[in-house]
Amino acid sequence: MSFDTIINRFGTHSAKWDKMEDIYGVPAKDGIPMWVADMDFRAPDCVQDAIAKMHEHGIYGYYGDDNSYLGAICWWMRTRHGWEVDPQAIFTTHGLVNGTAMCVDTFTEPGDGIVLMTPVYHAFAKVIRANNRRVVECDLAVENGRYEMDFDAWDQQLDGSEKMMILCSPHNPGGRVWTREELEGVAAFAKRHDLILVSDEIHHDLVFPGTKHIPMALIDGISDRLIMMSATTKTFNIAGSHSGNVIIHDPDLRAKFAARMAALGMSPNSFGLHMAEAAYSPEGAAWLDDLIAYIDGNRQVFDTGINAIPGLSSMPLQATYLAWVDFSGTGMTREEFTKRVEQDAKIAVNHGPSFGSGGDSFLRFNLATPRSTVEQAVERMQAAFADLQ
Amino acid sequence: MSFDTIINRFGTHSAKWDKMEDIYGVPAKDGIPMWVADMDFRAPDCVQDAIAKMHEHGIYGYYGDDNSYLGAICWWMRTRHGWEVDPQAIFTTHGLVNGTAMCVDTFTEPGDGIVLMTPVYHAFAKVIRANNRRVVECDLAVENGRYEMDFDAWDQQLDGSEKMMILCSPHNPGGRVWTREELEGVAAFAKRHDLILVSDEIHHDLVFPGTKHIPMALIDGISDRLIMMSATTKTFNIAGSHSGNVIIHDPDLRAKFAARMAALGMSPNSFGLHMAEAAYSPEGAAWLDDLIAYIDGNRQVFDTGINAIPGLSSMPLQATYLAWVDFSGTGMTREEFTKRVEQDAKIAVNHGPSFGSGGDSFLRFNLATPRSTVEQAVERMQAAFADLQ
Ligand SMILES: Cc1ncc(COP(=O)(O)O)c(C=O)c1O
Ligand SMILES: Cc1ncc(COP(=O)(O)O)c(C=O)c1O
Repeated sequence: MSFDTIINRFGTHSAKWDKMEDIYGVPAKDGIPMWVADMDFRAPDCVQDAIAKMHEHGIYGYYGDDNSYLGAICWWMRTRHGWEVDPQAIFTTHGLVNGTAMCVDTFTEPGDGIVLMTPVYHAFAKVIRANNRRVVECDLAVENGRYEMDFDAWDQQLDGSEKMMILCSPHNPGGRVWTREELEGVAAFAKRHDLILVSDEIHHDLVFPGTKHIPMALIDGISDRLIMMSATTKTFNIAGSHSGNVIIHDPDLRAKFAARMAALGMSPNSFGLHMAEAAYSPEGAAWLDDLIAYIDGNRQVFDTGINAIPGLSSMPLQATYLAWVDFSGTGMTREEFTKRVEQDAKIAVNHGPSFGSGGDSFLRFNLATPRSTVEQAVERMQAAFADLQ
Repeated sequence: MSFDTIINRFGTHSAKWDKMEDIYGVPAKDGIPMWVADMDFRAPDCVQDAIAKMHEHGIYGYYGDDNSYLGAICWWMRTRHGWEVDPQAIFTTHGLVNGTAMCVDTFTEPGDGIVLMTPVYHAFAKVIRANNRRVVECDLAVENGRYEMDFDAWDQQLDGSEKMMILCSPHNPGGRVWTREELEGVAAFAKRHDLILVSDEIHHDLVFPGTKHIPMALIDGISDRLIMMSATTKTFNIAGSHSGNVIIHDPDLRAKFAARMAALGMSPNSFGLHMAEAAYSPEGAAWLDDLIAYIDGNRQVFDTGINAIPGLSSMPLQATYLAWVDFSGTGMTREEFTKRVEQDAKIAVNHGPSFGSGGDSFLRFNLATPRSTVEQAVERMQAAFADLQ
């Protein structure tokens, strides 16, 4: 299997493909879905083998004995991220939207403020609001074409009613990999304002050569207020398994979270567990290295093609397969540039405003698809904005 | 594939098999696990085909377009249970322990009393206590060797602090299929005491010939306080998919539940959805009819063999594959009869007290295993209690 292979996902209950026409009016016939953050690639062979083995056995009963599963997570964090995880610190949630929601539910009260660095992954705000907590949008600054933190401004902005901060590291959208200095800044900020820090590192494996992701857990002096979140699902394209890890080393925070997990009767499905154990392996790691190289290629094709259109600017990604394109240079209204992308280029994308403050002039394009599709998308974009040339 | 086929489940992350020795001290070498409520049978071909198709496709992304999935549930409830379900009333939770927990969380407050008809499925009390609610044990009476409700006694017992009742229908353990009159009694009781009624009908498909299960939703005048729960997981032996349905027709209750689902960021994994759609089909129904006949055979072998041991009495099951054996006639202490079952017969079983009041002299045996294993279990039991002959 090569990443170049085009696989028809229509009629497979794919949200990205099967709901595109309904939601965007982008025709199934010849539209390109670049919205939902999953990939159009097959899972690695090691994961495929795990499913084949489950199928061959054919009994899908209650899962027990998670030692090798937990061991695989610890192995991955140690070898890929230089981070030692205590297996007892690991909670498996139903994905990280659920993980985030559980953190909000467990560690804050209705009315509490929860800090986001906006624009950021849309589900954070959704989950905060659904819990009757307040979204506190701390705007990222754009400097040298990339997102930067602005602690001075944020210090002014906070009023003491905030109880939690959710960090997206690497950042979605915009693809920043935060530096050690920036992460130390976040830790100091969380302490200064007495915030629980939830670090969503779901994109930690999808980092391009030349940059290194640093787990927040490796930053000094934050562990007593830190919740780490990670998953196999983005890395290996198995989001359908709806599994994620919430990793808590602090004993008090861990006990509180364990109590909520028990109260909500949460335990993971066996598919996610079998797949994660198979994925967090040397075979999975080798596949991932190839994947990163491929997406890096897609990114270059996309950015070159998009940045050649006057007024369009694709933020240089250090991580993630989610390109973040600024249309403000076109002088067009949001309606106009969105119409051109969706109706003329027939590409379904995520709309900037859903990511919160600072997203207005942006659209997000998912590049985890065969190269030829990225090339086609670029051509269509160039045609749809040809009058700007 | 015949139900007679013995499939080795060791080393497959099976809770029932792989954790038996750890938890019970019953040796893996020659022990018989008859505890955890899953079956030692392969899922039906239609479910196997669904997994094979997912595997062949090999992309496990975000699931979308659940119309055919919801349609399959509605079809099943209509054709197997004579119950019309509005697809919009269906919530898919991570199994029914999670479904029960979500009901407790959504519809009651800390300190509230929640009524159980004991002895009953152990996770109910666990989840109630984990939420800091109070378990109110209303004892089932044993009459003519089977469980009967005792509303007069229960009316005396309740003090107005109770807010919810969880019904297990059919009942686990004991295997009662409640009659229309009994269900009407439950409805009247719930109204009289102003209780939300959660009806866990996960065992509704596993009913032996000669008895008919009546969905609580078909009882008049209860719909405005009724939560229905069902699942494919017991019926088709796919508990590892951790999926269940909470079905709520009342608009107010439904809106409240929907808000909690959103706040907790809950959405189902794609394996459970694909499998459920495949299972709720004519092929699934045909397999189920065969399964019921087979388990009915197991039940007869088991009950005949066990009831031949003086002092032992296996409750006649109308439903479920969970035999409920009373050892009180032996005059032995709980420690003694449990030791004989676990250490002499080497059978791992569920202990009665975990099911709450009334369970003390009982052990629960899982009969969903090849006939030859049931026969072997019976032989071992007869040997372990040979001195009573
Ligand atoms: C930052 C971030 N967190 C979480 C998720 C989703 O996690 P899950 O599918 O595990 O709920 C995404 C998906 O795009 C994401 O970008
Ligand atoms: C009455 C009852 N409800 C729920 C469950 C478990 O449901 P799930 O596996 O969906 O959490 C069981 C399992 O034995 C059961 O007997």
